[in-house]
Amino acid sequence: MGKASVARIQRIRKQKIDEQKLIEGIINGNKTDLSKAITYIESNASKHDQLVQKIIEACLPKANKSIRIGITGVPGVGKSTFIEAFGMYLTQLGKKVAVLAVDPTSSISKGSILGDKTRMEELVKNPNAFIRPTASGSSLGGVARKTRESVILCEAAGYDVILIETVGVGQSETIVHSMTDFFLLLKLAGAGDELQGIKRGIIEMADAIIINKADGNNKKAAQKAKVEFNRALHLYPEKKSQWKPKVKLCSALHNEGIEEVWKMLSTYFAATKENEFFYLNRKEQNKFWLLQSIDDQLKRNFYKSEVIKKALEEQLEKIDNNSTTPFEAANYLLGLKANLDK
Amino acid sequence: MGKASVARIQRIRKQKIDEQKLIEGIINGNKTDLSKAITYIESNASKHDQLVQKIIEACLPKANKSIRIGITGVPGVGKSTFIEAFGMYLTQLGKKVAVLAVDPTSSISKGSILGDKTRMEELVKNPNAFIRPTASGSSLGGVARKTRESVILCEAAGYDVILIETVGVGQSETIVHSMTDFFLLLKLAGAGDELQGIKRGIIEMADAIIINKADGNNKKAAQKAKVEFNRALHLYPEKKSQWKPKVKLCSALHNEGIEEVWKMLSTYFAATKENEFFYLNRKEQNKFWLLQSIDDQLKRNFYKSEVIKKALEEQLEKIDNNSTTPFEAANYLLGLKANLDK
Repeated sequence: MGKASVARIQRIRKQKIDEQKLIEGIINGNKTDLSKAITYIESNASKHDQLVQKIIEACLPKANKSIRIGITGVPGVGKSTFIEAFGMYLTQLGKKVAVLAVDPTSSISKGSILGDKTRMEELVKNPNAFIRPTASGSSLGGVARKTRESVILCEAAGYDVILIETVGVGQSETIVHSMTDFFLLLKLAGAGDELQGIKRGIIEMADAIIINKADGNNKKAAQKAKVEFNRALHLYPEKKSQWKPKVKLCSALHNEGIEEVWKMLSTYFAATKENEFFYLNRKEQNKFWLLQSIDDQLKRNFYKSEVIKKALEEQLEKIDNNSTTPFEAANYLLGLKANLDK
Repeated sequence: MGKASVARIQRIRKQKIDEQKLIEGIINGNKTDLSKAITYIESNASKHDQLVQKIIEACLPKANKSIRIGITGVPGVGKSTFIEAFGMYLTQLGKKVAVLAVDPTSSISKGSILGDKTRMEELVKNPNAFIRPTASGSSLGGVARKTRESVILCEAAGYDVILIETVGVGQSETIVHSMTDFFLLLKLAGAGDELQGIKRGIIEMADAIIINKADGNNKKAAQKAKVEFNRALHLYPEKKSQWKPKVKLCSALHNEGIEEVWKMLSTYFAATKENEFFYLNRKEQNKFWLLQSIDDQLKRNFYKSEVIKKALEEQLEKIDNNSTTPFEAANYLLGLKANLDK
């Protein structure tokens, strides 16, 4: 055997050992290994695709055992403070908490939510908490896939409660809703819907509205808002879960109302496990994610080739010059890809 | 040459003649041919794919010469009545008007908007108007593609103004917005946003809000609503088109305000052609549709095989039985497809 072959075999063997070590690390709850693996997931380099797939496959049997909670609200509503207080409370109950984020703005601003871990000072130091700043990516679909895969890893690492944060704009709420069991909307008292930039569809998705900063001078306004939201929620048709969305007051800054939120969640999970919605919903989500995974992979497959990337640039330029139409350009690119695959 | 071969060649020749006749018919403004071709577009049968592509390719050089107007508003706002009045007015100006629809509910209810042509009694009989009921389809993406292809055909058939109707729910507005030059939101006076089910994002997309049914007892409320909407519209950032969205009153039933709407549109088109936004926007839309066409074709390609369709059913059932995960199932199906394509 030549030197090169020996080196190659040694490299493969080394890689396998590293891979195995990484997987064991995750399953044993090693945060560094978990972080490293999520970095591979977030990498857009196709050389990591196989490794990522192996890690996920190894983690899957250990996953699916947490509860997944989506948290949304516009900037300024106090999401970080709420997650800090809520996360600390959960760890005091002996739970392990992971915090992830789906941020549609991150691809532009390079990480606006969770980017600044210092806003969760205590939680970030807590051995039973894992906080992962925003996955970035060129498309929301890509970010969604990465987050969903990260959930699997966190669950395999033994995290009981997965909090997935997002901001109250764009389609990111729908995506977070499609990967969580409970959807929590944070609001402020006093500010109108328009001003808070919250779309009607998001209120419709909410399993609970938490009015944050319900303290001091805000208390009265918060009480009033609670009544109003309760009234508004009654206008929506009954949820498949048979759960009636709740409105709760809280002051994350003063640690008030946090226990109440957890009690509500416990009631929800008991009820939806009892009526089996919890399991049914996860199955529906899995079906959705099967279709999404296929779509995603088809696109990745198509665009991974350098030839196609270059040709796409050219066709986009031709559209700019009015020398082609989207239909012609699409046919050209699809034909090119078919030839490459031959 | 055997009998079978002769028959085959005759069939192909006949098909080519039919194809040519159909294309000529469309370009000569024959409504029956236009209808027939749109039916081919709407057909999900892959045997029509090639024919459709040829028709579109032949129509493309004649297309791109109309103005495209998106019209949205919740059921009951009077869309059909408005389109009837507006369409009749345009034909009186010597224009040819085509009315299409993107209806997200049609796949369930089998055509809820434009389905009932009798609501546009006069326009439907007008030789210079072409009304096409909702394209149906299993996915909104599919419906969008079909509508966009139908626009090409209508333009080739000489229609100057293309009206694309949709309802004020879901993602259909975004899709209609992505294929039109001007986006018009119909509203009623008096009813709040929540009640009208109009999302904030839709108001943001609107180039004009038309308050319909501004007649009789409604007049005062409509005037008040106009002031309020004008105020609300000022809160949004300036549009790329530099156009300031307008609020207009109208009573489609009494034919009042229709001329005003057309004057506004003329001003808009003059201004956006002057500052070149019109052309820039169409280019951006074309780029978007290039990517959409590729995505769409990738999916069609993937799911067209009967083997894949059956395997997908099986995998979905396995998810129901918790005997697979979305990741495993996706990998299985992608592997199966790769084998089929070998």
